[in-house]
Amino acid sequence: MIPRYSRPEMVAIWSPEMKFRIWFEIEAHACDALAELGVIPKEAAKTIWEKGGAATFDIDRIDEIERETKHDVIAFLTHLAEIVGPDARFVHQGMTSSDVLDTCFNVQLMRASDILLDDLDKLLAALKTRAFEHKDTVTIGRSHGIHAEPTTFGVKLAQAYAEFERCRTRLVAARAEIATCAISGAVGTFANIDPRVEEHVAKALGMQAEPVSTQVIPRDRHAMYFATLGVIASSIERLSVEIRHLQRTEVLEAEEYFSPGQKGSSAMPHKRNPVLTENMTGLARMVRAFALPAMENVALWHERDISHSSVERMIGPDATITLDFALARMVGVIEKLLVYPDNMLKNMNKFRGLIHSQRVLLALTQAGVSREDSYRLVQRNAMKVWEHGKDFLEELLADADVRAALPEETIREKFDLGYHTKHVDTIFKRVFEATGNN
Amino acid sequence: MIPRYSRPEMVAIWSPEMKFRIWFEIEAHACDALAELGVIPKEAAKTIWEKGGAATFDIDRIDEIERETKHDVIAFLTHLAEIVGPDARFVHQGMTSSDVLDTCFNVQLMRASDILLDDLDKLLAALKTRAFEHKDTVTIGRSHGIHAEPTTFGVKLAQAYAEFERCRTRLVAARAEIATCAISGAVGTFANIDPRVEEHVAKALGMQAEPVSTQVIPRDRHAMYFATLGVIASSIERLSVEIRHLQRTEVLEAEEYFSPGQKGSSAMPHKRNPVLTENMTGLARMVRAFALPAMENVALWHERDISHSSVERMIGPDATITLDFALARMVGVIEKLLVYPDNMLKNMNKFRGLIHSQRVLLALTQAGVSREDSYRLVQRNAMKVWEHGKDFLEELLADADVRAALPEETIREKFDLGYHTKHVDTIFKRVFEATGNN
Amino acid sequence: MIPRYSRPEMVAIWSPEMKFRIWFEIEAHACDALAELGVIPKEAAKTIWEKGGAATFDIDRIDEIERETKHDVIAFLTHLAEIVGPDARFVHQGMTSSDVLDTCFNVQLMRASDILLDDLDKLLAALKTRAFEHKDTVTIGRSHGIHAEPTTFGVKLAQAYAEFERCRTRLVAARAEIATCAISGAVGTFANIDPRVEEHVAKALGMQAEPVSTQVIPRDRHAMYFATLGVIASSIERLSVEIRHLQRTEVLEAEEYFSPGQKGSSAMPHKRNPVLTENMTGLARMVRAFALPAMENVALWHERDISHSSVERMIGPDATITLDFALARMVGVIEKLLVYPDNMLKNMNKFRGLIHSQRVLLALTQAGVSREDSYRLVQRNAMKVWEHGKDFLEELLADADVRAALPEETIREKFDLGYHTKHVDTIFKRVFEATGNN
Amino acid sequence: MIPRYSRPEMVAIWSPEMKFRIWFEIEAHACDALAELGVIPKEAAKTIWEKGGAATFDIDRIDEIERETKHDVIAFLTHLAEIVGPDARFVHQGMTSSDVLDTCFNVQLMRASDILLDDLDKLLAALKTRAFEHKDTVTIGRSHGIHAEPTTFGVKLAQAYAEFERCRTRLVAARAEIATCAISGAVGTFANIDPRVEEHVAKALGMQAEPVSTQVIPRDRHAMYFATLGVIASSIERLSVEIRHLQRTEVLEAEEYFSPGQKGSSAMPHKRNPVLTENMTGLARMVRAFALPAMENVALWHERDISHSSVERMIGPDATITLDFALARMVGVIEKLLVYPDNMLKNMNKFRGLIHSQRVLLALTQAGVSREDSYRLVQRNAMKVWEHGKDFLEELLADADVRAALPEETIREKFDLGYHTKHVDTIFKRVFEATGNN
Repeated sequence: MIPRYSRPEMVAIWSPEMKFRIWFEIEAHACDALAELGVIPKEAAKTIWEKGGAATFDIDRIDEIERETKHDVIAFLTHLAEIVGPDARFVHQGMTSSDVLDTCFNVQLMRASDILLDDLDKLLAALKTRAFEHKDTVTIGRSHGIHAEPTTFGVKLAQAYAEFERCRTRLVAARAEIATCAISGAVGTFANIDPRVEEHVAKALGMQAEPVSTQVIPRDRHAMYFATLGVIASSIERLSVEIRHLQRTEVLEAEEYFSPGQKGSSAMPHKRNPVLTENMTGLARMVRAFALPAMENVALWHERDISHSSVERMIGPDATITLDFALARMVGVIEKLLVYPDNMLKNMNKFRGLIHSQRVLLALTQAGVSREDSYRLVQRNAMKVWEHGKDFLEELLADADVRAALPEETIREKFDLGYHTKHVDTIFKRVFEATGNN
Repeated sequence: MIPRYSRPEMVAIWSPEMKFRIWFEIEAHACDALAELGVIPKEAAKTIWEKGGAATFDIDRIDEIERETKHDVIAFLTHLAEIVGPDARFVHQGMTSSDVLDTCFNVQLMRASDILLDDLDKLLAALKTRAFEHKDTVTIGRSHGIHAEPTTFGVKLAQAYAEFERCRTRLVAARAEIATCAISGAVGTFANIDPRVEEHVAKALGMQAEPVSTQVIPRDRHAMYFATLGVIASSIERLSVEIRHLQRTEVLEAEEYFSPGQKGSSAMPHKRNPVLTENMTGLARMVRAFALPAMENVALWHERDISHSSVERMIGPDATITLDFALARMVGVIEKLLVYPDNMLKNMNKFRGLIHSQRVLLALTQAGVSREDSYRLVQRNAMKVWEHGKDFLEELLADADVRAALPEETIREKFDLGYHTKHVDTIFKRVFEATGNN
Repeated sequence: MIPRYSRPEMVAIWSPEMKFRIWFEIEAHACDALAELGVIPKEAAKTIWEKGGAATFDIDRIDEIERETKHDVIAFLTHLAEIVGPDARFVHQGMTSSDVLDTCFNVQLMRASDILLDDLDKLLAALKTRAFEHKDTVTIGRSHGIHAEPTTFGVKLAQAYAEFERCRTRLVAARAEIATCAISGAVGTFANIDPRVEEHVAKALGMQAEPVSTQVIPRDRHAMYFATLGVIASSIERLSVEIRHLQRTEVLEAEEYFSPGQKGSSAMPHKRNPVLTENMTGLARMVRAFALPAMENVALWHERDISHSSVERMIGPDATITLDFALARMVGVIEKLLVYPDNMLKNMNKFRGLIHSQRVLLALTQAGVSREDSYRLVQRNAMKVWEHGKDFLEELLADADVRAALPEETIREKFDLGYHTKHVDTIFKRVFEATGNN
Repeated sequence: MIPRYSRPEMVAIWSPEMKFRIWFEIEAHACDALAELGVIPKEAAKTIWEKGGAATFDIDRIDEIERETKHDVIAFLTHLAEIVGPDARFVHQGMTSSDVLDTCFNVQLMRASDILLDDLDKLLAALKTRAFEHKDTVTIGRSHGIHAEPTTFGVKLAQAYAEFERCRTRLVAARAEIATCAISGAVGTFANIDPRVEEHVAKALGMQAEPVSTQVIPRDRHAMYFATLGVIASSIERLSVEIRHLQRTEVLEAEEYFSPGQKGSSAMPHKRNPVLTENMTGLARMVRAFALPAMENVALWHERDISHSSVERMIGPDATITLDFALARMVGVIEKLLVYPDNMLKNMNKFRGLIHSQRVLLALTQAGVSREDSYRLVQRNAMKVWEHGKDFLEELLADADVRAALPEETIREKFDLGYHTKHVDTIFKRVFEATGNN
């Protein structure tokens, strides 16, 4: 976790304070169920909630105990006993440490997911606003980095919207993957604790009971979770790369926001670097990389080994904090993105009408000219544009053979940008009206 | 694709024959829609279906044309024209090559997914059968590779069942991710083709129309698809590693099937190697590795670049063929797995009752012995077992201090395996009755 | 392995013919050593070389035997016996299959490396030629995709040269990693074979004897090998991305070769796609991905398990064939790259002198103007260029305050491109004269 | 960076204090060279060294300035000016921030490498000591997890020694990869600074001058560096997995150290978990994962983009700190590893002599018995061992047909373990005497 790439709300989820608070909640909910089942006194459960709920856990004290006991859960329980008093002996009955640790990790991932979902919602809102703003802003579509046919900048953003909406759907599914609770004992057989305790705790925390755990919650769930974050990161990379391309000196169709008074740039006004999207490109690489050790964590030995633990202590915070930071940064970039429609038109006209050559070619063949002759006619005029900077439309209009086949009106019509944008409404309808999410 | 790790049905999906057949279907369905819209004659669409549907495409001939035109789709269309005759000029109107290529790739992935889903169903069936067969076969549960508490072999298999059922759910979602069709032209604006054509083709092929494509179908979908295959592969690895562990010489609680007459082993009857599960462990590494380039494919430049293509020519077949092979192999391994309940008991009793020490400890404290004294009592008897090979139960029964606290009956009761298996029914109910899938 | 991305020489290394030939050589060399040690008759070793050396191994026949024996090495030895006659009983004495398989795999990787080294040499030669050709071709250097300061196109290529020379050095080291031979028996103890046999075979094949093998040659060697291929692939990606950027419509400073007569492009002369470098970008992703399973292969269980085998059957051919194809393709791209110095100048002057603003700023401060005033002076002229398309030099010369601080000559000098290229010779000397390799 | 998995010396390398100290050294060394070249006064260089060298940089103050200037290097230089006084204006002349940042990063990696090399030396020393201690400790070699032939525990450790010695060689090479310095300006052309400054700074810091940099030092170097750490991590995983296997309840041939008085275990003395090696298994996954984004960092755009920066801020510390921690932990595990030779013998004899069956088979054929008959003879006795727990040697001696072919002495000789260990000296000689490193 790098403070520079972190936001406090997400960092808080992974703090010791939050961890111990969640541990307490798991234990206290379990006490409720145990009391209900008659295993422990109801009064004890009540006392535990009251005293523990009001207390602030003393991290230093817990650390001190852990240095002695070399066991984090025991250290916490000892400290809890200092707070709760004699009734503390009813806490954790029949449970194992992993019941607390694994359930807590999933609670943290759930809460992290909620922040990420909120980030995505904000990003979707920003993309939608800007997409409608530029629904009809014509720009050249590019395949292979080469001009192809016109599209609109709004369609570009609509594509991003649709992509992040898919990411949202995926994250909802990923959240459900890890929203499970296990309180099942040393090898998951409930030997020392009634399965109804697990069911109660799960419900209280908004989780499902893990159908069959083996001391640990199975790690295929977490593999799927972190793989999903990797895919979302890849979509962030795509949008970042798009903006970086648009901001290139020679393209300059859009720019990350740069405040007018911002010093350092005005002496070199062209030198505005897309550092935010470059940064996100790098962050995406990191989030993606975390998917791999998560997949390697699946094949734990027999009922469990603990090799996954060190991995998760790292990627749990790192993946969620980094993705949260990148998503939030992207929201800002999109909201404030400087868009230059004039440059879009200027770039599109760089080859003075050549992008319409295929429509002219088609018109000629449809007018009865053989494919070979059509090609020759288009080509000889295209070459004048390419080699001598002429205007394609003017050349075509001045070419007697072309005119013999096509009336002026038809030729001019082939240069109409509206031809390319006529279905933008359909696309927007598909993207923004199909689902009720946003 | 390695023939040794391939099954014909999946290989067929990636054959040139299949590819051209799918191309034809896409084109022919598009003709239907174009005819319906009045763009081309209905008779032409009919002729195309009839002649193309009846034909066998000549791969060599297509290759020959491609060598000349250096364009695979044009080569196919030229060959199709040789088959269909003059009406072929109505094929592919307003479409671009990527419309055919991307939609075809997704059709192939859909069909591959259907085979994989079938594999998973077979694996689930095998796991279920064997799980019920060994529902009450007591075996030691192991954490960290060390004996922990008893469980049953059926519970182990139930865990695997639950895990692969999650894999199935994930694969259904992944299949939906890539079950989209794009017929939207050079930059996805439908400039030259009506969006209704795309909708018709999508429906005819059992797909959704891609809400907004940009010549290509966005690759976040495929990243999610291949990441999901990677997670499934990781679950295969987990089950493989479990079996490899159980087959170790010193453990020998289960073995991959080995026919009695199989030569080569009988002189060294202990030398039966878990080569199938070892093989699957390696195959899992490969399928997992393919997730990464799929994620790197997401950030195509602008509306599209073609860097994803070489990746997909490799991982499309390789990931699906390898996973299909591994899943099918796992079905066989599970169905025929040799299970040795006697060895399970023998291993469990290796330390002559010591696995019950914690229950005895608890009983002593519950009987009013202080925690320190309880510990000392259990320890001194445990040490006799550990160091001198004594029987734990006998030692306890012979220990006057223990007997002073606990009656014989109570001590004996702590050695009852039934204590550990009493909730197996609950677990099975959760796993096998919760969903209606299988 | 995809035929489309393969070259015959590299494919041949991974053919069954080559594999059996190498197996034969390993066995025959071992016979020589065994004969020398008096374990088998010298005549037998001679006969084996003569008959086996002259024979063409019948792949179908070997396959047929393997279907029966289910063991590839035994199948080969049986076929060899059919060729060699009774003396074949002296073949393979005291050896295990892995001795042959692992040594063969390393021989294949060595030979693959030799082809790759040859590819790299060709690429280095092409880069050197083009670098010197464009040593003084001034072009804008870009940081963050934004114009920074001038450099030369030759320096760009010199950078690539230096990078691929490093790749060459790495590949030489990687080749040495896997150039080891193991003939050490079932667990590597030489129980049944004299270590001198291994030493003889190693020497005969140009390898080192593996100091301590355990039936298998340790896989950290192969992990390092495939990781190195992944790094080389990443350098291919970098150069590919550079060319793709330069070929963008708005930049067009260089292009993949496009023959003048090549049809299909002349009607849209701007539509020349950098498909070769895009293709290499994708291939690089694949080669990089293969590094991971190779690293996961390291932790084999105890003396060996066979999980690495399926991985290596895939990545052995796939990584080397793909990298060979990409390197060879890059040679062609560099050799024939179309370079447009005029466009480089045109792009550099897009902001009419603004790239020199920092030198002017420095000159003003050095002339005694305060930093704040200097900044203000540069800024107000820069803004005229940026907002109104003026020429920066002309504006500065017309600005009385600037002129009060700096004589015309000094101002003009700040626009001298030679200032930026004065150390190009030094750079070239460092890159092309430092090592004797090329 | 997780405190739990960190050691202070390595953490210190990545502290702000260390970073600013290195920045200062780079700047001050550059001043020396600039002074020598007459660009700045020699007195100024002297003053800078004196005042800066004596100062403690105030991190909070630098942070405060950075919040204002939004530029880390400028913030540092401003703070340095507060310390050095007027002569500070001679600092950083003609340099760009990346000159400082990139060179500093490489200095940090060099120093991190020195710690890692020291770790490796300690690990090699530990492995060597334990290898010689157990040079003749016979244990069963296992392929596929199944008993194969005897080897010694010393040979196992010698293998690990040889593997980590290779890792050391690789790390030395990786250190050389990143031991380069760049002080070359905005696009690496030395427009504003003499190349001799770079050469001086490089030499002063024990580095090579980067032959051709482009504002940044090329990232193929770092890709190779982090890939190498990934391979070393994989070797740590291998050794960890070996120990985890040996500690399994059923095997128990070795154990991580467990102090006799350590509470918590004595009531369940079998429950000693290999948590350290499990932990290292997970840490290895992380270090390996960091290789990927490092490879993706290679393809920066044109002369540089800054996408690599966020990646390196994470993996620079995380990879080196984690690997250092894992290596140091492994040193402790090996030094204190509890080894149980008696259990090794007990396990080896689990199948009462069956591991010698192949030698008996060979002896029979060598004595003239046909291969089929030999097989049948061995098999019928082997089966008595396998199925009825007989002793293989006794059965053979009691088998008249066997005895007809082989004298008792010969049969007994086939059960001699010395046969398998006779070349251990040769192996040790190869491993421990071949290189002069340790």
